[in-house]
Amino acid sequence: MTRRHEAEIPAGSVTSKSLFVMPDADAPVPAVLILPQWSGRSPAEDSFAEKLAQLGYAGIACDLYGDGRRGTSQAENQALMQVLLDDRAELRRRLLDLMEAVGASPDIDSDRLGVAGFCFGGLCALDLARAGADIRCAASFHGLFSPPEGLDKPKIKATIAVYHGWDDPMVPPSDVTSLAKELSDRQADWYLMGFGHAVHAFTRPDAGDDTSAGIAYDAHADRRSWRDFTDLLEDRLQ
Amino acid sequence: MTRRHEAEIPAGSVTSKSLFVMPDADAPVPAVLILPQWSGRSPAEDSFAEKLAQLGYAGIACDLYGDGRRGTSQAENQALMQVLLDDRAELRRRLLDLMEAVGASPDIDSDRLGVAGFCFGGLCALDLARAGADIRCAASFHGLFSPPEGLDKPKIKATIAVYHGWDDPMVPPSDVTSLAKELSDRQADWYLMGFGHAVHAFTRPDAGDDTSAGIAYDAHADRRSWRDFTDLLEDRLQ
Repeated sequence: MTRRHEAEIPAGSVTSKSLFVMPDADAPVPAVLILPQWSGRSPAEDSFAEKLAQLGYAGIACDLYGDGRRGTSQAENQALMQVLLDDRAELRRRLLDLMEAVGASPDIDSDRLGVAGFCFGGLCALDLARAGADIRCAASFHGLFSPPEGLDKPKIKATIAVYHGWDDPMVPPSDVTSLAKELSDRQADWYLMGFGHAVHAFTRPDAGDDTSAGIAYDAHADRRSWRDFTDLLEDRLQ
Repeated sequence: MTRRHEAEIPAGSVTSKSLFVMPDADAPVPAVLILPQWSGRSPAEDSFAEKLAQLGYAGIACDLYGDGRRGTSQAENQALMQVLLDDRAELRRRLLDLMEAVGASPDIDSDRLGVAGFCFGGLCALDLARAGADIRCAASFHGLFSPPEGLDKPKIKATIAVYHGWDDPMVPPSDVTSLAKELSDRQADWYLMGFGHAVHAFTRPDAGDDTSAGIAYDAHADRRSWRDFTDLLEDRLQ
């Protein structure tokens, strides 16, 4: 049995409407912040939170845009995302505020926090790690990699796992080698799983199977990344 | 309880002295050929065979040099390896002969074969997959990637897993992107785990911890690669 409630959390310049899905437990539990794709918090992230709660982790499907805002077209999604891509300092503030609110929850063990993100949310997961946040692990699923510019570079505490579709047209191999260099230069504990033939959004069954469009579900990559991710949570959060 | 016996197997132009470590089982079992590092079959590969047998797989520590030959210095290792690097057709024959002999064993299910190799043996594992062999999975641990030239390119049947130390001085990032392209062009099912900070020989505790030498043990990479590898065997051989 899991319990769920929506919370309003001041995050940077907005008020985040995020969903907490809590496992049944007698003691504070480890928690995973879930950072959405560009469209904003959606049933996909809420379901992922539920899956994690069933494994014993609090799953928090985070709203990063404020007031639960969601795009309903690619143009709207792009516009919502671009605001934060253009202001990575504000993105960092929202992420840190959310993390602190999650850690302050009496049902959650603030020493055992992790983060996972999808697509744009993958970049957000990396950004929370890049901010030196007190998280134990950060996972990017088919995320974007470009680092923030002009922000400080504290010690990265999280173990970073990057699940990447090798044929993702938005993230060419040169981005992989750049990210590897960035994370190694910063002495982060990191690893990458690169999946042959997989493209963007490979964990999303609703992305269809037309890889030529650059966005498609990939059953192998979905299964392998999930398997490793749950092992990562066991390693770092239990 | 496991049982072990050494077998003499005609393999290409040599006679291979390979070790079979068999699990206790009433029916034919899946098997994993283990391809050694450049020094030739050693206690490390024999131990790995034992570990696999304890999981229910026949582990076959393969001698690729013939007559159980082993190098006792870097110069000898290099010379032994170079013969096969210079004649990839002969290497392919030895690998295919070994695989067929393993599959012909009455205790082994020839439909459920896999291969794993270390360093030079990682290249050999890839070469067996590149030969279109009837194996279900091929794993390279800190292996070399350079493809054979002038050999035919049949359909690759194995799922290929590449466990790679990102700072391996023998295998720079450009080799990673080349291998990815080769395997994708050949429509192989493949994925790669790249481990930040890990160098060559990361699974070998006896490699020490001086990463500046380019050869060192890495506990994280060792644990993560083993975890994924055992999952791969479950996926593909059970």
